[in-house]
Amino acid sequence: MKVNSESENTVLKLGILLHRVRDLLMMCEDPIFSKYGITTEQYAVLSTMKYHGSAIRVTDLALGLEHSPNSVSMIVDRMVKAGLVTRKRDRGDRRVVYVVSTSKGENAHKLATPAALGFIREILSPLSYEDKGTLVSLLEVVRDKTLNYLNPGVDIEKIRRNSVINQPDLTKRLKQYLLSSTPQTKRQGGKKEKPIG
Amino acid sequence: MKVNSESENTVLKLGILLHRVRDLLMMCEDPIFSKYGITTEQYAVLSTMKYHGSAIRVTDLALGLEHSPNSVSMIVDRMVKAGLVTRKRDRGDRRVVYVVSTSKGENAHKLATPAALGFIREILSPLSYEDKGTLVSLLEVVRDKTLNYLNPGVDIEKIRRNSVINQPDLTKRLKQYLLSSTPQTKRQGGKKEKPIG
Repeated sequence: MKVNSESENTVLKLGILLHRVRDLLMMCEDPIFSKYGITTEQYAVLSTMKYHGSAIRVTDLALGLEHSPNSVSMIVDRMVKAGLVTRKRDRGDRRVVYVVSTSKGENAHKLATPAALGFIREILSPLSYEDKGTLVSLLEVVRDKTLNYLNPGVDIEKIRRNSVINQPDLTKRLKQYLLSSTPQTKRQGGKKEKPIG
Repeated sequence: MKVNSESENTVLKLGILLHRVRDLLMMCEDPIFSKYGITTEQYAVLSTMKYHGSAIRVTDLALGLEHSPNSVSMIVDRMVKAGLVTRKRDRGDRRVVYVVSTSKGENAHKLATPAALGFIREILSPLSYEDKGTLVSLLEVVRDKTLNYLNPGVDIEKIRRNSVINQPDLTKRLKQYLLSSTPQTKRQGGKKEKPIG
């Protein structure tokens, strides 16, 4: 009986904590990304596009982000207005539309990446290497269960393969990306940004 | 060198996973709460009010929710418009304003609670009792670090004491609450809701 009540207490705590931690992360990250003229959400879209190649269909973007295609489509609309991405039709099959990042979007992403990495490294610094691995595993279990809840017949393996976090060479590609040529600063920008990384 | 690269990979994964899991939870929870005429965010506010007493100042609500007072104030504005809460001045000190839930807000919260609990219980069901405890501890470390990041001089202990999740009798109070008199259904609602729990 005591274990049951304690177990229920832990479930309640987790239900609240999983939301709170993300709220707090967003409160920290929003000002970091806004320095580069993008939102935390737009940074996630640009990152997904980066890892999947420069042109991507909304449905694949939604798979990579684990969002619904409708909500991704609305985010893309706002990004088109902000000049961060454009929509382009496939030359072979005109029904297929790709989302392509602009140089403005590329620049913002590349400049924001070292700041974003520095932040998440600092936030996770109190956790040991083993603790971080445990947290990844536990969160993956919760993620897979929510994916199953949203779509009982969903192919979890396919989603895992498409997910940014399961690219085996994630860190290597990130390093190459950060070490490659410094992006040009925007012409309309007054101060020249210092190259980072 | 390998450990460094693996460690960096884990940091990247966590930076993404902490966001993704919450996005997915919201995708699941939004339709659950919308059945009761509230958003996931409004449910969190009503829950915090419930555990802290029926009248609460915005600053205490912000402490309990670990949000900024400004963002909580905007959420409260929308809830006042939706008829879920009202603002009331303190009789003794007219400068102090309390947020008080309406019967509409109370009803919505009470009817939504069993559904919300059932959902989070199901989502966490693949984790053992020990795993759930580990996840709580790890997320608490991340939460405390973000709180420190946002406000380097912040009193973490005070926030912990005020936080809903650290109320020692959380489950007991929740059970009493769910077993107490069934809330009245809204008059304008056509179908009578079945009492749950």
